Amino acid sequence: MKTINVGICGLGTVGAGVVNVMQRNVAAIAARAGREVSITHIGARRDNPACDVGSAKVSRDIFAVVNDPEVDIVIELIGGYEPALELVMQAISNGKHVVTANKALIAMHGNEIFAAAEKQGVSVLFEAAVAGGIPIIKAMREGLAANSIEWLAGIINGTGNYILTEMRDKGRQFDDVLADAQQLGYAEADPTFDVEGIDAAHKLVILASLAFAMPLNFDACFTEGISAIAPQDVVFAGELGYRIKHLGIARKTDQGVEMRVHPTLIPQRRLIANVDGVMNAVLVKGDAVGPTLYYGPGAGAEPTASSVIADVVDVVRTIDAEPSNRVPALGVAQESLSALPILSMSDINTAYYLRINVNDQPGVLSHITQILSDSGISIEAVLQKEAVQQETNVKASSRQIPIVLITDRTLESQFMAAVESIEALDAVQDSIHFIRVESLG
Amino acid sequence: MKTINVGICGLGTVGAGVVNVMQRNVAAIAARAGREVSITHIGARRDNPACDVGSAKVSRDIFAVVNDPEVDIVIELIGGYEPALELVMQAISNGKHVVTANKALIAMHGNEIFAAAEKQGVSVLFEAAVAGGIPIIKAMREGLAANSIEWLAGIINGTGNYILTEMRDKGRQFDDVLADAQQLGYAEADPTFDVEGIDAAHKLVILASLAFAMPLNFDACFTEGISAIAPQDVVFAGELGYRIKHLGIARKTDQGVEMRVHPTLIPQRRLIANVDGVMNAVLVKGDAVGPTLYYGPGAGAEPTASSVIADVVDVVRTIDAEPSNRVPALGVAQESLSALPILSMSDINTAYYLRINVNDQPGVLSHITQILSDSGISIEAVLQKEAVQQETNVKASSRQIPIVLITDRTLESQFMAAVESIEALDAVQDSIHFIRVESLG
Repeated sequence: MKTINVGICGLGTVGAGVVNVMQRNVAAIAARAGREVSITHIGARRDNPACDVGSAKVSRDIFAVVNDPEVDIVIELIGGYEPALELVMQAISNGKHVVTANKALIAMHGNEIFAAAEKQGVSVLFEAAVAGGIPIIKAMREGLAANSIEWLAGIINGTGNYILTEMRDKGRQFDDVLADAQQLGYAEADPTFDVEGIDAAHKLVILASLAFAMPLNFDACFTEGISAIAPQDVVFAGELGYRIKHLGIARKTDQGVEMRVHPTLIPQRRLIANVDGVMNAVLVKGDAVGPTLYYGPGAGAEPTASSVIADVVDVVRTIDAEPSNRVPALGVAQESLSALPILSMSDINTAYYLRINVNDQPGVLSHITQILSDSGISIEAVLQKEAVQQETNVKASSRQIPIVLITDRTLESQFMAAVESIEALDAVQDSIHFIRVESLG
Repeated sequence: MKTINVGICGLGTVGAGVVNVMQRNVAAIAARAGREVSITHIGARRDNPACDVGSAKVSRDIFAVVNDPEVDIVIELIGGYEPALELVMQAISNGKHVVTANKALIAMHGNEIFAAAEKQGVSVLFEAAVAGGIPIIKAMREGLAANSIEWLAGIINGTGNYILTEMRDKGRQFDDVLADAQQLGYAEADPTFDVEGIDAAHKLVILASLAFAMPLNFDACFTEGISAIAPQDVVFAGELGYRIKHLGIARKTDQGVEMRVHPTLIPQRRLIANVDGVMNAVLVKGDAVGPTLYYGPGAGAEPTASSVIADVVDVVRTIDAEPSNRVPALGVAQESLSALPILSMSDINTAYYLRINVNDQPGVLSHITQILSDSGISIEAVLQKEAVQQETNVKASSRQIPIVLITDRTLESQFMAAVESIEALDAVQDSIHFIRVESLG
């Protein structure tokens, strides 16, 4: 059988990882793909000393790879929107299969890309775009094919999880850990995508589309970062039996689909609450299987290469079959996707952790609980802490103490109205800190 | 496109689960499979009120299903070796694809079955045979295709894990928990397969063959059960920072492959150490991806049905393609399997937990540590407990106290020789309790 020729666009960290793993495990990969696979053409602005490209042709123009008639499969590893989109569309229109690790591209332009690929009868696979080396796309697209997915929740940004883990383990401040993470290379110089949840939102949107067979809809995803998490919230959460994780959550309800990335309190007995450091994990609840969890490294050269090459093997296995014999990008054909309504945050149901700094005077807690009760919000737990007295001579009434509450599940719009009423109390001077709570049970 | 007809042999708990899930999610399953899938023929000795078989033909002779020319895919759910083997071989020779949940059958007769299937150009899939609803077979066969698997470790028997979890959480005795588990339906009337590790060994052998591309070799798997675990071992392990789990472990070394099922101490900070109750999990270490873990329900009607139907969807997707377009049973063609040597237990390397009941007299610990040191075995941790004084008037020399040690990694034959020497000491009257220790790092 003809050897399958692979072209790579982009020879950064992941590109070098793909070259190295392909070389190291060449025989096993050929056995699993059913035929020889060879990297024949690499497009990169510069060489990368982290790998030896062997006999592969190297072009400085990445478009030379997608226009090379000898190349059967194009691996896109340049990242970003442009020229990645143009490159992928050109590869498809040239009849080449595409494997990409580019979550931003898929989240933003996946609909256009998948439609073009289906029309052309080629595959676009993207296992490496979500949760690095974890084969979560394959699990959801094929492994759980029998299920209606009810919800999923993922720790899908390693940088954010590293920061939250350090804050908990060492009682450190967010800014402080972030600066260290930047020095260690775990966080970018501009950490916005990671700490504000944009990277996680890209990945969540992809998982939600796979879960619910719906088109990608990045703009509808709610995103809240972790920069406002205070060390005392981490401590109070722990005292109440919870851990704070930055989760991407997608849930199908009768009203529509929730898609949201935000810090979340999770009961510490849940397995996913114990996923620490830069590791990723995705918890998926199917109607037949129940809860399943997938854990592993969310980034890195070889973990990402592992996913990229698995996609290549998948493409090769059916490369001479009919397009109908290949699993579609989102598990179902384009015509079977349906654009489900995405809920706005005011319409979601969840529970809440609140930290309210109040003047230490009688009756405050009772005023607060009265407001919540009037709003139909039940309280699950209360933690009232002693004031940390900073001056010896302050009057009791001017001392600030934190009241910490965990509510039952409620509609977010209702909760926000209650927060506004509480903030209007005389004894409440700061704005209220709240973090959503999910039981994931 | 022609509807694909599925026949089911066996309508017990899992069979009813398959019927129910197929009915409930029929549209989604068709979308994922790329065409309609219909259960047309069921072979079962008796009806099962847990499901409504609709318009499917029902035969009391299960062979009527595999000999039905209208059936494209046979789902074997009768369990055991015979007539399951004859049924599956007959289905293959009739040119039908087979999906089975039968771990005993695959572990014992997989080589013969897979060879026949390859020759006939049909698929035999068995996701449900290992770890119930967790798509671990697909993850290893396809998701990790780029990797050389270095080792794997799995909690792959829910009954055993439930018993160990109860022993830890409630300080209970093995026999006591087992009796309860039998009443709750978590354990069989004859619990041998579960508590002696035979069921786990069936599954481990399948995972090891997938991991290392080698023929199935059940007879070479070492199996040790959990019935000798004492509550005090659970407590001492906890004090040393470990949890006891019944693991199936497969590891590739330069000398050969380790395949062993036994109770194991694992550091409690590992995610897999926190997999409790009837849940299953498999930790897989690939050379490219690093560690990945897969968690979910290891048994039950619908979790098992989830895996069975995922296999059906896989078969349907490529049912009109060439056999070379289908992923082989063990990920590679029969000719690419190699019969690697399986190590005997005396040749494996691991660490050990020892509990030695000694007479409370001076110098015993020093004698024991001297023997270990002379055998080249380092000690990682020591826990010397006070005697629990049962009589007020016993002489110090006749009081028994437990000495608990954790060793460094060593060759098992060397360790066993040291144990023999320690048991020969005057102060040591009982036989030594030991449990293997794995860091899984």
